[in-house]
Parts: sequence; C-alpha cells; structure tokens
Amino acid sequence: MAKKIKTAISPTRDEDYPKWYQQIIKAADLAENSPVRGCMVIKPWGYAIWENIVKVLDEKFKSIGVKNAYFPLFIPLSFLAKEARHVEGFAKECAVVSHHRLEQNAANELVPAGKLTEPLIIRPTSETIIMDSFKKWITSYRDLPLLINQWSNVVRWEMRTRMFLRTSEFLWQEGHTAHASRDEAVNFTSLILNIYQDLAENYMAIPVIKGSKTLAERFPGADETLTIEAMMQDHKALQSGTSHFLGQNFAKAAEINFQNAKEKEEFVWTTSWGASTRLVGGLIMTHSDDNGLILPPKIASSHVVLLPIIRKEVDRGPVMEFCEALAKELRNKVYHQQKIGVEIDNRDIGGARSWEWIKKGIPLRVEIGPRDIAADSVFLGRRDKDSRDKITLKRETFIEELTSILDEIQENLFNRALSYQKEHSQNIDDKSQFYEFFTPKAKTKPEIHGGFAFAHWCQNPDCESRIKDDLNVTIRCIPFSSEPEDGNCIYCGKDSKKRVLFAKAY
Amino acid sequence: MAKKIKTAISPTRDEDYPKWYQQIIKAADLAENSPVRGCMVIKPWGYAIWENIVKVLDEKFKSIGVKNAYFPLFIPLSFLAKEARHVEGFAKECAVVSHHRLEQNAANELVPAGKLTEPLIIRPTSETIIMDSFKKWITSYRDLPLLINQWSNVVRWEMRTRMFLRTSEFLWQEGHTAHASRDEAVNFTSLILNIYQDLAENYMAIPVIKGSKTLAERFPGADETLTIEAMMQDHKALQSGTSHFLGQNFAKAAEINFQNAKEKEEFVWTTSWGASTRLVGGLIMTHSDDNGLILPPKIASSHVVLLPIIRKEVDRGPVMEFCEALAKELRNKVYHQQKIGVEIDNRDIGGARSWEWIKKGIPLRVEIGPRDIAADSVFLGRRDKDSRDKITLKRETFIEELTSILDEIQENLFNRALSYQKEHSQNIDDKSQFYEFFTPKAKTKPEIHGGFAFAHWCQNPDCESRIKDDLNVTIRCIPFSSEPEDGNCIYCGKDSKKRVLFAKAY
Repeated sequence: MAKKIKTAISPTRDEDYPKWYQQIIKAADLAENSPVRGCMVIKPWGYAIWENIVKVLDEKFKSIGVKNAYFPLFIPLSFLAKEARHVEGFAKECAVVSHHRLEQNAANELVPAGKLTEPLIIRPTSETIIMDSFKKWITSYRDLPLLINQWSNVVRWEMRTRMFLRTSEFLWQEGHTAHASRDEAVNFTSLILNIYQDLAENYMAIPVIKGSKTLAERFPGADETLTIEAMMQDHKALQSGTSHFLGQNFAKAAEINFQNAKEKEEFVWTTSWGASTRLVGGLIMTHSDDNGLILPPKIASSHVVLLPIIRKEVDRGPVMEFCEALAKELRNKVYHQQKIGVEIDNRDIGGARSWEWIKKGIPLRVEIGPRDIAADSVFLGRRDKDSRDKITLKRETFIEELTSILDEIQENLFNRALSYQKEHSQNIDDKSQFYEFFTPKAKTKPEIHGGFAFAHWCQNPDCESRIKDDLNVTIRCIPFSSEPEDGNCIYCGKDSKKRVLFAKAY
Repeated sequence: MAKKIKTAISPTRDEDYPKWYQQIIKAADLAENSPVRGCMVIKPWGYAIWENIVKVLDEKFKSIGVKNAYFPLFIPLSFLAKEARHVEGFAKECAVVSHHRLEQNAANELVPAGKLTEPLIIRPTSETIIMDSFKKWITSYRDLPLLINQWSNVVRWEMRTRMFLRTSEFLWQEGHTAHASRDEAVNFTSLILNIYQDLAENYMAIPVIKGSKTLAERFPGADETLTIEAMMQDHKALQSGTSHFLGQNFAKAAEINFQNAKEKEEFVWTTSWGASTRLVGGLIMTHSDDNGLILPPKIASSHVVLLPIIRKEVDRGPVMEFCEALAKELRNKVYHQQKIGVEIDNRDIGGARSWEWIKKGIPLRVEIGPRDIAADSVFLGRRDKDSRDKITLKRETFIEELTSILDEIQENLFNRALSYQKEHSQNIDDKSQFYEFFTPKAKTKPEIHGGFAFAHWCQNPDCESRIKDDLNVTIRCIPFSSEPEDGNCIYCGKDSKKRVLFAKAY
C-alpha cells in the first residue's frame, strides 16, 4: 500500500466529502454552528468573502440602474395566504412571530406575552411585500422601469442544514423589477444572469453553465427561470444564481398596472433574481483541496501574508522593520480596483503559523528572515502550488510582479476548475450508460458519481420525473450553449432536438 | 398680517414640527409606512443615505482593525433570561418566534404549527450571542484584541413609532471588542466615539457635543457610556452614536477569560458601540427647511441633476446631447474619494420637475436650454441658497469649480447648523430661568422650547431625576469640552465643579 501523504485536512475529499467540507470551514475559520438550531455564525474570514461578493454584485447592479431599498423583516400572514404559490413554496417551513412581549410568570420565568392578533412571518423572500409597494409606486409609464434590489437576511426553517449551503437564516440579495414591455423584461432577466456569470467566472473563478430551467425546475409562477450551474468536487451541481422572467403573472396577482404613453392601462412585466451566501459554499467546494481553502485573488480581501522569521531576538527589529515597510508598499498597490490586503503574522507558534495561512487559503505567503533581508529578497509560496514549492524573488521583482502573479493564480484556479468540470462531464446517448454514470462507484462514497451528463430529452415532464425518482438526478438546465441536434430521449427514446444538462444537485 | 411665503412643505417647521418632519420624508421620497405595524419601507433615495453612512463608518472601522462578522437573527430565550440587565432593557418589548411552520386548518386558513420547545427572540441587540462566541474564540492574549462589528437589522417592539427615529425594525451596526487591558479598552471606546463624531460633523455636517453619560443615562452594565449629541430644529437633542466601556462586567457575566503572557487567567475588558438608521432622521431634522430635504454633498449619492429645457421638439437633440456629454464629464470627477452622482431628468412635467429635486435635497440643479448651449454655459441653482437665487456659469468653469462648490455647500450646512445650535444654547445659573428655558413658548407648539442648557449639577442622581420629572429634561452628557469651574447645582444649589448639558431628547 502506498504511503499516505499527510494532509492538513482530515478526512480528505476522497475519504469523506461532506465531512471534508465541514473541516475546511473549521480549518479556514469561516463559520461555526450557533446556539440557534440551523443558524450559523459567519466568522470574519468567511464574512469577508461575502462582503466582496456583495461589493462586486452591488456595483454591477448599480451600473445598470438598479437602486437598493429596504423592506420589513416581517410579512403579515395574510400576504402569504393570498399567494397560493408562496404557501406551497415557502410558507410551510417558516419562523412565525406570535407575541410581542416577554413577561415574568409566577415562577419568575420569562414567558411570551402580548399575543399578536395576526401572526407575522419572518420573510422567506420579500416578493409579496415588495409587490405591495410596487403597486403603490407605479402609476404611469414614467415610473418604469422600476429596478429595485434588497440586501437582507431571510429565514426558511430547514430541517437538515449545512453551513453556507442550507441554513435556516441566510444572507442574500433579491432583485425585483417592473417594465413596460415584455421584451425589456426578458432582456433584463438575461442581463442579470450575465452579471451572475461574470461574478462566478471572473471573480470567484467558478466556471458555470448558463441555461434555462425546465417547467418542473422553474420558480413557481415564472414564465422562465435562467440559472448558472457550477460543478462541485463531488461532481454535484450547485445552482449559483437564478434570474426569473415572471411575465405578467405576478403583476396580475398583485394588480400592478400602469398608464402607458397612450393613456391605456396595462399590467407591468416583472422579473426577480437572487444570489446568496450559498455562493460562499460554492467557492469552498470548487477550489479547496486537502490542505484547506484556496481563495481566488479577485474575491480575497487579504492577498499576502508576511511571515517574519525571527530565530534570535536580535533579528526582531530589522525583520519587523523590513516587513512593515514591505507591507506599506504592497498596500499602496491596486489589484483590479481593490487594495492589496496584507497581513503580518508575527506570532511565535512555529510551523503551525504557515499552515494556518495555507488552510485559510490566502493566495501568497511570504517568509522573511535575516538571510532574505541580506539578499534583499523574499521567499514566496503560492496557494495554487504545492506547499513545499517556494521560490526566492528579489524584493523589487516581487513588488513589481505582484499583481501579475495574482492574476496568474486567478487564471490557474479558473482553468483547473474548468478542466475538472470538463473531465467529469460527458455526452451520453445510451440509457444504461446514463444510469451507470450516476451510480456511485463505491458504497463507502455514496456521493461520488460521474458528474454532468449532457443527454437528449424529449421535453416530456414524465421522463424528467422518472429519472429523478430513479437516480435523484434532475435537469439542471437547458444550456444556452446547447446546439440544435437530432437525437433520442435518454429515457424514452423519442425524438429530441437538444441535449440538456443532467446532474445530481445541492 | 404679513403675506405668507409659499413653501413646498406644509405644514412648516414653525407651524407643526412633527408633521413637517413626516412631510419632508414623504416629499423627499425617503421612506413610507409599511403594511407591518411599526416597520417602514426605506425607499431608494432614503436608503442611499444609509448606504453612504455605512460606507464611511465601515471604512473607518476597518482602518483601525475592526472585522465584520454575522451572528444569528434569533436569540434563544434562555440567553436573555440569563442577563437580568437585558430583560430590563430590551426583552420587555420584543418579537417572539413561537412556531416554525404554517398549516392549513379545516377551514382552509393558514395557522401556525410546529411549536418550538424554546421560543426564540428576534435580536433587539446581539450582545448575548456575540459574547457567547467571544467566550469560544478567546483563550490566549494572542487572540486579543478581538475587534468585531456586525451590520444588521434588529427589532424592538415600539408602541409609538416615528420613521427613522423609532421603528420596530431598524438597521444598525453593533461593535463588540475585547481587550487584554483596561487602558486599551478605554482608549478604544474613545477612538470609536471620534469616528462617530467624524461621520456626523465632517460627512453629515451635523455638529455634535461629545461627552460621557451620567450613571442614570448610561447603558445598563456599562462603566462608562460616551455619546455624541446633536441639536434638531425643534431644539431637542438626538443621541447620534454611543460607545460603551463595559469594564469586565460583561466578561465576568459571560465568563470570557484569557491566559495572559505570564500564563495567568484574566477576564477580558470589553466595549460595545452602535449607530443606526436613526442618523438618517438626524440628518433630515438638522438640514431640511420648509422646501424639503437638504443633502450635505459628502453624504449624498447624487450631487447634480441636469434639467434639460426643451420648449420646441427641434431643440431636443442638441439639448440632450449637451446634457449627456456634460453628465459624462461630471461623472468622471472625484469628490472626496467618491464619484460625482449625476442625474438627468428629462420628464416633461413643467415646473414640478425642479421642485421635486429641491424637495429631494440634491445639492445642485443645472438647467440647460438652447440659449445656455449657445452661450456654452449652464444655469445653476444651489440647494443651500434661495430657490430663485440662480447663477449662470460657463460650462468649463462649472466643471472646474464643481468640487469646490460642493465643498462650499458642505461647509455652509455645517456652519449653519452650528450657528443654530449655538443660538439655542446657553449657560444657565438660575433655577427659575432654567425652568423657564424649558417651558414651551406657546401652547400650540408644545415641542418648541429654549434648547441646550449648560448648567451646573452636583452629581446627585436625585437632582437629575427631579428635573426629569418636572420638565422631561435629561442630562444628555457631561461634555468633554466642559472646563472645571466652581458653581452651584441648578436644582439644589450645592457645590458643583462642572457644567453638564441639559436638554429634552428624542
């Protein structure tokens, strides 16, 4: 038996993927379970990733005219009751506020008091309450388009939770827009999907497959749901952002109409779209390895950690001085419109120090000791390379090349993820091969299977639902890149004109 | 009787201050009441002010090493019960979550189901849950200082609400830090107060009085509460940010200790500090006049609105072209590290258009018609001046001078507010004059009274509480600027060494 390489994370991806995921979160200090069931505490290193996601998306939304607003946390029960779709989709598992006071009882215990006449629901989404405002805000074509986004927390009472991927409370943005014409709304839905793709691919280095959902997988009430789907390292798909064209369905339900330029009353055309802290889970599962997290530089808030090597007390002064001066210079550099984040870690904790930063996924580790200073150089380790694979660079060269090194890492991570996706994707035309593809290879690793299958589908929801029943595999999307092609449905063999993307999903 | 000048806002400040405040919010399109009692919808123009407050504070917090994190919305009832102070302070009026599901009953109505074994409280503050994490995160002096901030929504069930000033749900930041020494914690408390002052004075143009709270007005459990107090146009004080030095009180209650460098166990020293959407209310009440809101340029997201004057259809092309080109040039300019925000309003709604922007408080209105284009000039109105007081400027001059004009407006607003504060502040040494000062001048205007009184106080809480009972006037702070001085307590006449700030407050 080959000797096992020692890894910082145990178990490894290969040994136990779900546990590996939990261990990455712990080792990288991203989040932890809270005393409240199903809710997590997002720790600074994890929250910084979300902050950068917010920053990127917020700027891009604003650049196309979207304005932020804020709507109440509470939804009156009657609002949900009005929307049958919502009851079905969200209301079943939600946090219900019943009282507005605490009182001390005879036994001196705190008990709920002040019963509300109408219970309130903590928003699982703000759809209904935002539409209530839209109805008030829109009267004329002059009020359109109305492009609103909200950054907020939402609550869906989840029974089985997984940090970042599925928690009872999570952070997200939900965009809601109203337009005077169908075309404008349809185009806007795509525009938003492109922003999600841009974020995923060009910032988070997560390659995605863009496409539209089948009726069965669509957002309830939507005429069209567009999605980006990413492959995780257990070959499952993660839906990483969705943009819905809602036609006039929601406008009719909420009675949102406007007077057009010809003074005729019409219903508006609406869209909605969202992305959440789930993206952080996607980032972790795309790039982490068996030594911990790997942060793509463009979404990292810290890019470089300086590790002073001080073996004798006499070296402390000059080494720290060199580090401080270098940090100052690096912090003045700009990397894709953001400042370079530099940490100095002078804790005296031995080899654990370097490993902590590897586990946290910082792109660059720079060791600086008396010998480096004498040679005016730095000893550089890159997180996209083997941890032992370090190089010496002249100080000036390092400063000059810093941003291009970061770009190289960014590119490497994307290409690596793309290769991984392609390696575990294939066109499949044979039903038994398709079933084989989605069957776990070993009983001990029930999560691991083939990956993404591009197969023909006759558009019959029955075939779709039978595959789901048999394999727990769904059509993730009808990819935009899917060229028209004659083929036979992978399930029933009937005519098909297009391949769709089948996968297991989070 | 003098002819009444027509104003855009009715009633005026003088006629009915509380209603005037509501009308400003409506006219400037800042917020509106929501279908949920006590909660508001913050509309884009109002939310943009909050976004800029967040941006300024967040950068300043980060610059001193504070990291953001996120803690759950829910607090277990037992956490609150543990903290007697919290029960007293917050838990009495709070939103209680009792169920986690909705079910359809026999009559097909949605009703709460899935009763929780332990009710959850929507955070009125995250103190207890953050301290629970601190206990886990801190073991050694190497973990200190721990500097954490959270941006979030909180809920306090208010019976009488006023938009921005007091709502059941509001947005805020709460910072919590732990330090190895008393001195470090004390200094950090001041550092944060200086950040709040910097935001208020140098960005929001709100002059504030810095000081410490008396025991009666202190945050429950704090050893010291520092505050910034601003004067509103009804002469009342608005507490606009507080920073608390908590000593080891919370650390002892939550058992947060650490091993110091000499391997001895010690309790940490903690601070907490917060600012909220209430600041938006303070901004409104400091700068607005009887024509609407006035935005200080450094906190405005839009600085200039271009108003194309198109009387004949033939002019539309050239006028719009001129406006677009000008907007592009202006948007490339930088004003105190932010981009210049430029709006173009080409709606054909007559004189209402200009008034809408006056009411919204945009710093500069620029009218551009064919005659202006012919003269290569613009017709400029400033929000800090009379609405009819407009000047013609050469296009190039306007572009060159834009940022200095904005700086001038910023300075004018601050100076105007400072004069107002000084005008309605006075040293008072006579008890009957003090009582007179705080007595409303007319029965029809119960809100209007003298303003800020700097008077001597003997440090006896009884005198403080009697003044509160008699006049509803409290000691807002013991100002840092208050020089030692011999005097006599304004209530009892006993010896006093310092003047304190007395005022009515929001």
